[in-house]
Amino acid sequence: MSVSANVIENARLELDELLGDRCSTAQSVRDQHGKDESWHIACPPDIVCFAQNTAEVSEIVKICAKYKLPVIPFGGGTSLEGHINAVEGGVSVDLNQMNEITAVNREDLDCVVQPGVRRKQLNEFLRDTGLFFPIDPGADATIGGMASTRASGTNAVRYGTMKDNILSLTVVLPNGEIIKTGGRAKKSSAGYDLTRLYIGSEGTLGIITEITLKLYGIPEAIAAATVSFPDIESAIQSVILTIQSGIPIARIELLDDVQVDAINKYSGLDLPVQATLFLEFHGSENSVQEQSEMVDGICQDFGAKDFKWTTQAEDRTRLWQARHDAAYAAKALRVGASMWATDVCVPISRLSDCIMQTKEDLDKSYLIAPLVGHVGDGNFHLAFVLDMDNPNEMAEAERLNSRLIERALSMDGTCTGEHGVGLGKKKYLKSELGEGAVGVMATLKAALDPDNIMNPGKII
Amino acid sequence: MSVSANVIENARLELDELLGDRCSTAQSVRDQHGKDESWHIACPPDIVCFAQNTAEVSEIVKICAKYKLPVIPFGGGTSLEGHINAVEGGVSVDLNQMNEITAVNREDLDCVVQPGVRRKQLNEFLRDTGLFFPIDPGADATIGGMASTRASGTNAVRYGTMKDNILSLTVVLPNGEIIKTGGRAKKSSAGYDLTRLYIGSEGTLGIITEITLKLYGIPEAIAAATVSFPDIESAIQSVILTIQSGIPIARIELLDDVQVDAINKYSGLDLPVQATLFLEFHGSENSVQEQSEMVDGICQDFGAKDFKWTTQAEDRTRLWQARHDAAYAAKALRVGASMWATDVCVPISRLSDCIMQTKEDLDKSYLIAPLVGHVGDGNFHLAFVLDMDNPNEMAEAERLNSRLIERALSMDGTCTGEHGVGLGKKKYLKSELGEGAVGVMATLKAALDPDNIMNPGKII
Repeated sequence: MSVSANVIENARLELDELLGDRCSTAQSVRDQHGKDESWHIACPPDIVCFAQNTAEVSEIVKICAKYKLPVIPFGGGTSLEGHINAVEGGVSVDLNQMNEITAVNREDLDCVVQPGVRRKQLNEFLRDTGLFFPIDPGADATIGGMASTRASGTNAVRYGTMKDNILSLTVVLPNGEIIKTGGRAKKSSAGYDLTRLYIGSEGTLGIITEITLKLYGIPEAIAAATVSFPDIESAIQSVILTIQSGIPIARIELLDDVQVDAINKYSGLDLPVQATLFLEFHGSENSVQEQSEMVDGICQDFGAKDFKWTTQAEDRTRLWQARHDAAYAAKALRVGASMWATDVCVPISRLSDCIMQTKEDLDKSYLIAPLVGHVGDGNFHLAFVLDMDNPNEMAEAERLNSRLIERALSMDGTCTGEHGVGLGKKKYLKSELGEGAVGVMATLKAALDPDNIMNPGKII
Repeated sequence: MSVSANVIENARLELDELLGDRCSTAQSVRDQHGKDESWHIACPPDIVCFAQNTAEVSEIVKICAKYKLPVIPFGGGTSLEGHINAVEGGVSVDLNQMNEITAVNREDLDCVVQPGVRRKQLNEFLRDTGLFFPIDPGADATIGGMASTRASGTNAVRYGTMKDNILSLTVVLPNGEIIKTGGRAKKSSAGYDLTRLYIGSEGTLGIITEITLKLYGIPEAIAAATVSFPDIESAIQSVILTIQSGIPIARIELLDDVQVDAINKYSGLDLPVQATLFLEFHGSENSVQEQSEMVDGICQDFGAKDFKWTTQAEDRTRLWQARHDAAYAAKALRVGASMWATDVCVPISRLSDCIMQTKEDLDKSYLIAPLVGHVGDGNFHLAFVLDMDNPNEMAEAERLNSRLIERALSMDGTCTGEHGVGLGKKKYLKSELGEGAVGVMATLKAALDPDNIMNPGKII
């Protein structure tokens, strides 16, 4: 589908009247909104609108609906599967100016935020309240984007993903109508779970303009630890036993030797260049002590020797910043290179097989691809470090990613643990879920967005 | 809508051929399938089919689709809002013969069950594995029914509800097609969350025929406690502070004096007839000790004097069986009486107001209504003990329930925390969620079940 210049111009006139200089067709602005952090080809929108509130988003969508113009919500631009690329042109709705935390209900452990709020901004804001929001993808993403991709991160093993931490949403529908999917009760059985329907729908069913989030008390005690293993399999076995033992670990992250080397260089750490776990424990002083002793014991049983733990906030922050910068560290391994992140997730009993077979593939390839993983959930990423202008390298990454996904699916896993479908995983959905389930998704999309204006070309 | 006798007879012939004596039109069988445990008027189906596997459910649904005959999935018959009443006649699909636990993956902490498996059956089966499934509505419901109503129970404050504990579903669609909504990965961002769409859809979008559940390790230590308060408000304040302190309590249940009196009589306990909390702590020996000391301290600050705790399995079982029998105990307060259970849930900061105002209403009424609550989640129930043949008593219960729901909604709560909509909460959905959100639900229903054959008359 491609929209005629005439239609775009008519829509632009109306949007211009609504938004003034917050409606832009400047090439630089369009380019900035045409590409996320992924390897997918840039597709600039025709028009970029900067919305300031839900009512305005509704008016923008109504104008787009009138002209049947594609609408692509835009947050941090940090997605990893081309989610915000305007493959059919249209209007990018930039939500970054909607960045207010509108309510914090301390007694109820919840808060209400606009979609442009960044995860770090939220936690800085919350610090004095003694509360925090745990979901932490690598990038400093927006809460709206995280909701839209069903994001998670390093804390998911303890606190769940976005789907587990949202009480309700305000959504602008494809006809501009505004709905609220629920109240602030901790649980409800009142009809279809619209909240979970919109979480992970990647802007294809509507635009999320307000999010009510669950919060948690900052634990009385927090300890972090690093521990190096003789090989990657021992590290994974330690993870499996930790999870199976029911230890309520808050973070359990695997880095392979290549990734450790990369972050040593990028973040100035001096870890042994071996398979390594980054761990974090939350609880009372006693409980944190007890948990870390148990995990230390498990790791020693699998041959680890240098379990180092700390309760110093500074050391912890440094460690986790390094972990969050893993992708950037990978990229920095090669001057001018780009990064392509994979995202499979498998049942934990298959994690070791999946990772070992993947490492064998990598050993036979010339591409560099550090490995990091939220291994407590069975989720891990490779970061292919490559030259996107080199078709051979791109084809090799494609080949390795495709084999990796087939492997994960054969193990009852998923092609995407937390990044979402976007453009990159569309072709795998049917092998993962079957024609029937994908057919249901297509039915939902057609029913809720009959003119296919909401982020067309994604998921389905 | 009412289906002609001719159509029913033609369908019956086909179902009979498919199922033999597992297809019944006997009045007693139909009557047994026309009413759940609620106050709603019995509506027997025209035909009852006893299915033994997913393929058979698919064939049954195909026949019903051909004749546009209503299809009502039937599990334990323990629902509380008329979910299984055949308000438009049709075919009740009894799933009780599909009661196999088909896989337990100990390493992955998950299992696969058929929908007719009962929650107690599952935990008895699991006991030797060291694992358990935490969701526990009062009745010994089927897992399929619990999934269909998004059930929860006493453990939800720690372990979440059905929506948090299902990895994937097999669903027979209204055209008989069979889909699977996901694999066994702990998390996935692969498209729309079909799993959560069918959880809580009450059989109106399809029939759930297989469920992959999350399991948990049986905690190293479990302690239960009871503690009595001078008044109900002190009990609630203790709950609020416990939750806000981040104590990972597994169960925190409130019973008012009327309910305590009822279970003393029904279950042979001798608790002081006062507002009482039933508590449970899960963790290591140390952690359980620490948690219970902290909660004891909190309760004492609010005037409680007799915090009694036990780690004896026998005592714990007796206590929780009494709690699960609370509704039956309420019913037993009056010979020949029936029971009508309410189900609001509010943000915990409003719980005290909500309960106190509700108790004031009750004080002015002649109806008896013991109160129990999963108060850690802000969810509580009244059990009106009444004579269903007395229109005055029914009208009084209706009036009190209606005021209670309006109160909860004005506090940003929900009309149903865990029972579901069924017949009884339909009229409250728009006040709770708005025309727009209910409109989206109607659109989903029309798209996925265009002939409206799946459990018609429920939710929408």
